[in-house]
Amino acid sequence: MPRIPEQWLKTILLVLYQRPAITREEIVRSTGLNPASVSHALQRLLSSGTIVKVGELKSSGGRRREVLKLNPEAGYFIAVDLEQARIRYALTNLVGDIRYRWEQELDFGMGVAVSDLLRGLARVQRNLESWQSSRLLAVGISCPGFIQENGLVTAVNLGWRRFPLAEKLQEATPLPLFLETACRAYVQAERRLGCAQGYDSCLYIEIGKGIGAGIVMEGRYLDGRDHMAGEFGHITIDSAAADLCNCGKRGCLEAIASSSGIVRQYQAVGNRPVRLSDVFENARNNDPTALSVIDRASGALALGLSHLIMIFNPALIILGGDLLQAEDLLLPRIQRGIAAHLPEFVQKTEIRIATLGLDIGLKSAAFLAFQNSLADSVLLKKLCSPLSETITA
Amino acid sequence: MPRIPEQWLKTILLVLYQRPAITREEIVRSTGLNPASVSHALQRLLSSGTIVKVGELKSSGGRRREVLKLNPEAGYFIAVDLEQARIRYALTNLVGDIRYRWEQELDFGMGVAVSDLLRGLARVQRNLESWQSSRLLAVGISCPGFIQENGLVTAVNLGWRRFPLAEKLQEATPLPLFLETACRAYVQAERRLGCAQGYDSCLYIEIGKGIGAGIVMEGRYLDGRDHMAGEFGHITIDSAAADLCNCGKRGCLEAIASSSGIVRQYQAVGNRPVRLSDVFENARNNDPTALSVIDRASGALALGLSHLIMIFNPALIILGGDLLQAEDLLLPRIQRGIAAHLPEFVQKTEIRIATLGLDIGLKSAAFLAFQNSLADSVLLKKLCSPLSETITA
Repeated sequence: MPRIPEQWLKTILLVLYQRPAITREEIVRSTGLNPASVSHALQRLLSSGTIVKVGELKSSGGRRREVLKLNPEAGYFIAVDLEQARIRYALTNLVGDIRYRWEQELDFGMGVAVSDLLRGLARVQRNLESWQSSRLLAVGISCPGFIQENGLVTAVNLGWRRFPLAEKLQEATPLPLFLETACRAYVQAERRLGCAQGYDSCLYIEIGKGIGAGIVMEGRYLDGRDHMAGEFGHITIDSAAADLCNCGKRGCLEAIASSSGIVRQYQAVGNRPVRLSDVFENARNNDPTALSVIDRASGALALGLSHLIMIFNPALIILGGDLLQAEDLLLPRIQRGIAAHLPEFVQKTEIRIATLGLDIGLKSAAFLAFQNSLADSVLLKKLCSPLSETITA
Repeated sequence: MPRIPEQWLKTILLVLYQRPAITREEIVRSTGLNPASVSHALQRLLSSGTIVKVGELKSSGGRRREVLKLNPEAGYFIAVDLEQARIRYALTNLVGDIRYRWEQELDFGMGVAVSDLLRGLARVQRNLESWQSSRLLAVGISCPGFIQENGLVTAVNLGWRRFPLAEKLQEATPLPLFLETACRAYVQAERRLGCAQGYDSCLYIEIGKGIGAGIVMEGRYLDGRDHMAGEFGHITIDSAAADLCNCGKRGCLEAIASSSGIVRQYQAVGNRPVRLSDVFENARNNDPTALSVIDRASGALALGLSHLIMIFNPALIILGGDLLQAEDLLLPRIQRGIAAHLPEFVQKTEIRIATLGLDIGLKSAAFLAFQNSLADSVLLKKLCSPLSETITA
């Protein structure tokens, strides 16, 4: 069989990733490749078992059209979601379905050690069958804060300042590692797989223990001079507020509207330790303290989001994170608040809840690993090698 | 002489526009064209008189190097700056030097009629010598608000909502017209000619009767889905404020920190009509009312600018507009305010005053006309036609 250019394989596999099933004609249309190239590449991928035929569509003329999809077991990834409150680990198959998961709770603001991460990676690997091991391609890591040149990570809540995370991990494991700032990974995953498909300009807002923004304008991620763009959680949303933020300032959006901020405010008044879900439940039962904390947080978020709408005039803003478990309480308040802060001449920006849900971190880390594996000759070759060889090996 | 590709002429003329004088070698370096192409094009431009030799540099090896510049009288433009408080008209030469100017004061918020604009254009044209008339290339217009597809202008303070300005003007004059949103024209002019040369990511903030932002990220202007990005003046900077904005909302940055906002606040307390410069003068003489109005305006600006720094992480923010006549009062207050709103981990963003000064509107309109004339075959041909023919005609 003639050698297939990597670019063809890469383009076709990326299109297949985004669709549960697809015909040959749709692949030609979506990739812009010519039908003969697609045909060659598909023959190669079908013979290796990297993609499989799932059925046939009968078209009106009576001609049968093959329906294809990625073979979900053609490759595996380890996905790591370095949240601010816990670390989520997953073994995922090629298309990001989670096959095994493990979580490690963190003491918020207490930091995390590389040895913990290595133990987590090892634990996931122990759950691989031997035939899966041989198809394990890479590790994708989504990480809070920001990443500077040379993979230096600054994530205050994890105790890292210009910390050489990739280097430290790479010293200890032979697996290829791909690292990305959480909000950047999230917004890209929503654009490929979630509710932002077809949107060239959109913002993803993470509202969890921390608050941050991933901003894509005209198809390009807004990074900033020092890779620090999107530090939306640390805008001073209320100059008069006494709320002290983890960053050292007072009145930050994150101090008032993050999940930890909400719990803190509720406890400060009620004086008893509670969980975030308790605050929400009490608000649903009309507890005035819970309602006032939620009103304040929603108001701060609405004000901040209205700033983003005025400044970016985006088509879509996606909201995600812990807080969205109380979508019923927050979304109507946020929507009302935004409307009050926009002049009448401003066009409506769509506000949606992230469709990738609470697993967005793992899903986007798996997608990050997939995307980078396609761009790496060695990994692409591994992915496109015959599955039969693997399984009989 | 062989025909010179338009792209060579365009590239070389654009480089010459940005430099008072330049050697052949520097042109080769700046344009990336090969020396033979540059040589052909320069021969053509020298023979037509579009560029002129201004001297020679003696290099260490004894070889003489010609120093060249644009012939400032090779072309003329009409520049129009549709400010919110007045309309400025200018006749400029090829490099944007103002040869004649005329201004028309507007009643703020009362709107402007196309017939006024046409009278202004006619008035400027009457001041052209006949030989200048034949080299009049185009009209550049910088205009507040935002411009949507098909040249529809929305500028609340001028009384326009989706107003077909370009079309209405074009019906009445045979001159080619080029129209651009003020903040977009300004930031581009500062990048080409002013203090943002070499900056790929920067923001220009206009602080006059209105407040707006022109945002360039990685070399591209941030436009927004409906061309409304950068409406920085209408972010709600103080939710509790009673200050009513021209847009209908309360607490807008523009209501508190624009020049009209400052005058309004001063009058509301002092109860006597004053000019902006009086407020500044009184503040310099320690009038407590004037100082408190200026503190409030500076504080609001600093808070808004800190949001932009957190969101964009830009290398440079340029401040321009009416208010900068009181740079001595405002800049230290703004700088202090910004510092108070930034977490310690944030890298410094440079804040500079627009170098194109109060004529930035006319300068950028002239540059707009120049740039668009290069992209128009007919106008480029006119610009590169022999000057002798014009003058003897």
